[in-house]
Amino acid sequence: MDGTGRRSDRTNTHVDLIERAAAAGKAILCEKPIDLDIAKVERCLASLARTPVPLFVGFNRRFDPSAAALKRAIDDGQIGALRQVLITSRDPAPPPLASIPSTGGLFRDMTIHDFDMGRWLLGEEPVEVWATASCLVDPQIAALGDVDTAMVVMRSAGGRQCHINNCRQAAYGYDQRLEAFGSSGMVANDNLRPTTLRRSGAAGTEARDPLLPFFLERYAESYVRELDAFVAAVLDKKPVAVSAEDGRRALVLADAALEAVKSGHAVRV
Amino acid sequence: MDGTGRRSDRTNTHVDLIERAAAAGKAILCEKPIDLDIAKVERCLASLARTPVPLFVGFNRRFDPSAAALKRAIDDGQIGALRQVLITSRDPAPPPLASIPSTGGLFRDMTIHDFDMGRWLLGEEPVEVWATASCLVDPQIAALGDVDTAMVVMRSAGGRQCHINNCRQAAYGYDQRLEAFGSSGMVANDNLRPTTLRRSGAAGTEARDPLLPFFLERYAESYVRELDAFVAAVLDKKPVAVSAEDGRRALVLADAALEAVKSGHAVRV
Amino acid sequence: MDGTGRRSDRTNTHVDLIERAAAAGKAILCEKPIDLDIAKVERCLASLARTPVPLFVGFNRRFDPSAAALKRAIDDGQIGALRQVLITSRDPAPPPLASIPSTGGLFRDMTIHDFDMGRWLLGEEPVEVWATASCLVDPQIAALGDVDTAMVVMRSAGGRQCHINNCRQAAYGYDQRLEAFGSSGMVANDNLRPTTLRRSGAAGTEARDPLLPFFLERYAESYVRELDAFVAAVLDKKPVAVSAEDGRRALVLADAALEAVKSGHAVRV
Amino acid sequence: MDGTGRRSDRTNTHVDLIERAAAAGKAILCEKPIDLDIAKVERCLASLARTPVPLFVGFNRRFDPSAAALKRAIDDGQIGALRQVLITSRDPAPPPLASIPSTGGLFRDMTIHDFDMGRWLLGEEPVEVWATASCLVDPQIAALGDVDTAMVVMRSAGGRQCHINNCRQAAYGYDQRLEAFGSSGMVANDNLRPTTLRRSGAAGTEARDPLLPFFLERYAESYVRELDAFVAAVLDKKPVAVSAEDGRRALVLADAALEAVKSGHAVRV
Repeated sequence: MDGTGRRSDRTNTHVDLIERAAAAGKAILCEKPIDLDIAKVERCLASLARTPVPLFVGFNRRFDPSAAALKRAIDDGQIGALRQVLITSRDPAPPPLASIPSTGGLFRDMTIHDFDMGRWLLGEEPVEVWATASCLVDPQIAALGDVDTAMVVMRSAGGRQCHINNCRQAAYGYDQRLEAFGSSGMVANDNLRPTTLRRSGAAGTEARDPLLPFFLERYAESYVRELDAFVAAVLDKKPVAVSAEDGRRALVLADAALEAVKSGHAVRV
Repeated sequence: MDGTGRRSDRTNTHVDLIERAAAAGKAILCEKPIDLDIAKVERCLASLARTPVPLFVGFNRRFDPSAAALKRAIDDGQIGALRQVLITSRDPAPPPLASIPSTGGLFRDMTIHDFDMGRWLLGEEPVEVWATASCLVDPQIAALGDVDTAMVVMRSAGGRQCHINNCRQAAYGYDQRLEAFGSSGMVANDNLRPTTLRRSGAAGTEARDPLLPFFLERYAESYVRELDAFVAAVLDKKPVAVSAEDGRRALVLADAALEAVKSGHAVRV
Repeated sequence: MDGTGRRSDRTNTHVDLIERAAAAGKAILCEKPIDLDIAKVERCLASLARTPVPLFVGFNRRFDPSAAALKRAIDDGQIGALRQVLITSRDPAPPPLASIPSTGGLFRDMTIHDFDMGRWLLGEEPVEVWATASCLVDPQIAALGDVDTAMVVMRSAGGRQCHINNCRQAAYGYDQRLEAFGSSGMVANDNLRPTTLRRSGAAGTEARDPLLPFFLERYAESYVRELDAFVAAVLDKKPVAVSAEDGRRALVLADAALEAVKSGHAVRV
Repeated sequence: MDGTGRRSDRTNTHVDLIERAAAAGKAILCEKPIDLDIAKVERCLASLARTPVPLFVGFNRRFDPSAAALKRAIDDGQIGALRQVLITSRDPAPPPLASIPSTGGLFRDMTIHDFDMGRWLLGEEPVEVWATASCLVDPQIAALGDVDTAMVVMRSAGGRQCHINNCRQAAYGYDQRLEAFGSSGMVANDNLRPTTLRRSGAAGTEARDPLLPFFLERYAESYVRELDAFVAAVLDKKPVAVSAEDGRRALVLADAALEAVKSGHAVRV
């Protein structure tokens, strides 16, 4: 269970640690992804099913106050029947090149959060995934077999649609926006900034700060709330808010996107 | 009735033209102010009272769609009992120095629009005016006996308050904002810009265009609607939307502000 | 050349009128699409190639001041190397059911504007189109063989990506937004509203007007500028801003999207 | 030194505690105001001048990240020569009626923060104060000899102007906004909200959350930074960021405003 954030090169330690913690009867909070290999994940979850310990997967963004408010607005029927979800998720800068090979690629490392967010907001399981990906930030990323700029579309059985756009680099900071559109309205989230200052001068008006630098600042509150939810689940012996199955399904979507890029076909999941 | 806009050096022709038009039985649309001399205005209105011709004073801003919507929101009770009005009104650049002596000064030339707007939005007549004024833009304006930067506060008999701030120069364009605050809420108007473009980069995010340059662009729609209202009033023989008395009262407030600056006392009107 | 806007049931008269106007040596301004049948369009353009008359296709949105400013910002290098374009385009209400069969379907009737906008903003020809579509607004639209809610992704040869989302119904008005993201920044356009009023009360803050109702209001200025551009092209004998070839290519993209929905494959164009 | 926030009925304990802490050689962080009686404050400061202990006055808003960024923008010359400051400060609800008599009235209890903010942002000492005040929220406040709705204007020797508007009740939450206008631009601060959610529907678009409820939530970060600054001042033996003299001067302005309301004259300070 490492808490170092998103791009750990220790993802391959997760399954072993999960199994040892489970054997010791300890409640588990595991950073995403559980593992880069879906087969290994599925074996791990199968073994876990025989133990009573809770496994909570660290999709922290569900605990962001604004994301949670958007989800509540959907669930409360504020926008009627949901039709479309849009997720913009752009990092300020690519990870160190040396770490690229161990990330599992853009979809399993970065988009995995957006796959989880998309599933959660859609409220229906995606049944079809399509994706396209390019290397537009740094050709060395392509040389390492990865991509840095992608668009994904998922469709649920009920015909709801979810678009994700990703890039490993955004000059204006860590861009994290959500939009949900339904039969009676739309809800959307803005980015966060260090201050509310707006500057106006001869060159333009209402210019605001660059965005918060990266996930530790942007999602600081979400980590606090995630830990609260984990502790509450353990103490109250309630179902965890983000389950091992949620972790598995996000990885299935990431694998499907990768396959879609290779084949040019939408992949059914 | 000249249509050349705000800083005409022909204001001193208004009363003569009004009286000749009235004698000819013609409906009159007169640019603000009717005259810079309140005694002359009052003599003119007295003579006009004996003729049946309508006199419509050109406080065009009342016909701006956003200002009109704000007024409607107040009148419809959307903010409950009105408490405070805030008016920000800053010009992009001072008038030519040569025209300063004939303007009657900042309060009669520029603030006069805001006095009318304040009266109209307050919904109660101001009974007290206080003002302070400085010359911060160009010392040559002071040399000509005028000021370029001012703050005014008016109070109605019911205790409602109205703040006006003015400046003859704003680097970011023609700044025209309104805010009305009441017991159950607030309504406010933004500025207009040529496009809705928002620019984000390393230096900042969401930077918007400079504001529309000046009154001809900013209030283009208001002039169209003002003329429509004038024509409708004449054809339908209905009371004019902005009366000669409205013109007179705005000038009274401007004179009171000038006196307040000189005396340091709030002036009762 | 009909000027009735978007959902004419007289699209099938365009080619005949184009050919008669060309024979008469008249400059032509043709509403989009030229025709719903790409073969017919290609025959028309081939015949037109032998005449000197200009044919200007009515993709009016290119003349919207905010869209034009966004395009200029891209072309001026304000966001560096372009990577992604996002287009949100949702109508306030579906067309009359009776007109659905003659529209050619969502992609040829409604998305066609977005295909043109995407091509124009990408600055590189799309080489691949993928799309998914559902009927979520009105099952009668499905009964007529059409869809009402769609997402499209296009990719250029250089790897640039363009996402389009469409819906035939949006409760909050005619939703028309653009975003372009590049190596050094992002530019985006907001919607237009009748006024700038913002309302704050116990239920929420900064609530703004519903959007302008539909294309006649939203794109009023673009039609004026489009006509100006057409007249200028004719008088100055310069290339038209939006050519017959632009009209043809948008239709090719619409046909590709339709095929992608049917096949589940990305379609190369 | 009580930390219970703004409307302590223990303000009258401050001077005694300050003098005892000073006698014991302890560094002091004192909530505003030091006392409601300016003569008592001046005697306290005179006695304190003979001791080496630092006295830090709790004008916490200076430590709010957005207020601090606005101040830095002014000091860095981002808006050129400062001309006008606007401060909007409205509470969500009046204090308990029972506490009104011990508050010292609106100007000493609530506006005192805005007087300090105005002085700090103006960068020049106010030399003239004018104010008007009404009781528009609750007549029982008038019955207790206080007001609940006020506007203040201050002028510095250099002619800079500062407007403050206050109200004891705002239906949409705790309204805290700042604006500074100068020769080359303007900077302004928005309010804070619990989330960034924007809601759009048939009734309106982009509606945001009500504002953060009150000062404990709105200025949470400022209290942390204020304590950091106090500790740093003590440890580094540096001048305190907000001095006893700052505390005294804010009270002088509050007293001047009260006198201005009574006399109808601008009061020189």
